[in-house]
Amino acid sequence: MTRFIIQVYSTLFLLLLTQTVISHKTSIKENKPCKQIVLYYHDILFNGTNGANATSATVANATPLGNFNFGLLVVFDDPMTTDNHLLSPPVARAQGFYFYDMRTTYNAWFAYSLIFNSTKYKGTLNIMGADMMDEETRDLSVVGGTGDFFMTRGIATVRTDTFQGSAYFRLQMDIKLYECY
Amino acid sequence: MTRFIIQVYSTLFLLLLTQTVISHKTSIKENKPCKQIVLYYHDILFNGTNGANATSATVANATPLGNFNFGLLVVFDDPMTTDNHLLSPPVARAQGFYFYDMRTTYNAWFAYSLIFNSTKYKGTLNIMGADMMDEETRDLSVVGGTGDFFMTRGIATVRTDTFQGSAYFRLQMDIKLYECY
Amino acid sequence: MTRFIIQVYSTLFLLLLTQTVISHKTSIKENKPCKQIVLYYHDILFNGTNGANATSATVANATPLGNFNFGLLVVFDDPMTTDNHLLSPPVARAQGFYFYDMRTTYNAWFAYSLIFNSTKYKGTLNIMGADMMDEETRDLSVVGGTGDFFMTRGIATVRTDTFQGSAYFRLQMDIKLYECY
Repeated sequence: MTRFIIQVYSTLFLLLLTQTVISHKTSIKENKPCKQIVLYYHDILFNGTNGANATSATVANATPLGNFNFGLLVVFDDPMTTDNHLLSPPVARAQGFYFYDMRTTYNAWFAYSLIFNSTKYKGTLNIMGADMMDEETRDLSVVGGTGDFFMTRGIATVRTDTFQGSAYFRLQMDIKLYECY
Repeated sequence: MTRFIIQVYSTLFLLLLTQTVISHKTSIKENKPCKQIVLYYHDILFNGTNGANATSATVANATPLGNFNFGLLVVFDDPMTTDNHLLSPPVARAQGFYFYDMRTTYNAWFAYSLIFNSTKYKGTLNIMGADMMDEETRDLSVVGGTGDFFMTRGIATVRTDTFQGSAYFRLQMDIKLYECY
Repeated sequence: MTRFIIQVYSTLFLLLLTQTVISHKTSIKENKPCKQIVLYYHDILFNGTNGANATSATVANATPLGNFNFGLLVVFDDPMTTDNHLLSPPVARAQGFYFYDMRTTYNAWFAYSLIFNSTKYKGTLNIMGADMMDEETRDLSVVGGTGDFFMTRGIATVRTDTFQGSAYFRLQMDIKLYECY
């Protein structure tokens, strides 16, 4: 009888252990990314004369809808650095596009790849989502990855670090990956 | 001996129980989304004079390839309502773009974010995919989410609810999420 | 006592078995896709006179930034074939867009849907990512799927098969899916 009780308890203990293992493997906690990378995105829009420094260019002009650049479409190839200095050595490049898409304030929509080609990381992260610029932080989706970021998913939290008109703006991107392989 | 038999059966039972838990957590069934939201998307294209009501604007004109607007690119910021009335209070906004991409019939390609900011939901869903307008329903991919939709994935089934030329069209979007956290 | 030892060993064995089942279900191995499809993408850019054969058209012209078509935006509806012959019967269509986004060499960024409508497959794959054309192969992300590809994710490895100026180019796309339902 004593042995039977021991057996039952050990079985329950095992069940508990097993479920712990499962939930550890399948649950995702917002404050526990499996990888986190904070980078700064530097964008210098081509104005016709700054060809030596420009990293992005207007592909379609703003429409007359509202006063907040509705429809203005920009393609970029921007350096990504680990601190907020434009001239720091880039650790990745951000290639993609954004366009403005609101009549009543500045809002943009982004889709791009972060391309890493350093000793630390080789591979890409693919990101898309809405940038509601009036908010302190905005979350975009990391929808896939390749190379060292094979099949990853996560969230890129964007914060405006500086905005000097259309001449230069800098975003902090806090990239949190929740599925790592 | 009796105890040994009891032990073996209890072990098998435990194994069964454990596998049930695992398969419950990892399988996805098309008819069993973990969350479902049906919304209506209202699009009023800017025509130069309807600036007060327009919710979208042409960013690049159609090319001469075919007679079905091939290449016409539209940026939108459209209200999403829970019923099919344009003037119902929006529960979300759809910000993104579509373009026509077929020579022989109307086909479009969409990428956008649904931005929720209500008492019920705060967060975004990021969606992309092909809209083969001739088909009764078309499935787009929900490729990520943020806020209340943290890390979600799913399918958005689109159905044309009304199409009044380029002046106004309305889509029903049946959003089924299969990964919820 | 003997029975207790048997019990402990059987419990450990069970634990081992359970973890094997779990890791089998959640791990993803880069060389073990659950589905693989190799297709060829054929792109014939509209030049004003080849309307009968063209499968893509320029929607926004290149900007003056650099000499590598920076900003040139193309919408396409391209046939996908199982071998590298342009006139082979297409098994899918690729509908979407690409744009050039680098000043110092040819780089492009793609987002598109593969639309299958054959006896073998019905459904779509949604793909996005960077095409660094100088590299032998480039990996894009398969970020979602519908129909027979319900909720799938994976990698599309792109290789330039031929490049005949802007008149015609052909890409091999090796599509490896790692999440199948």
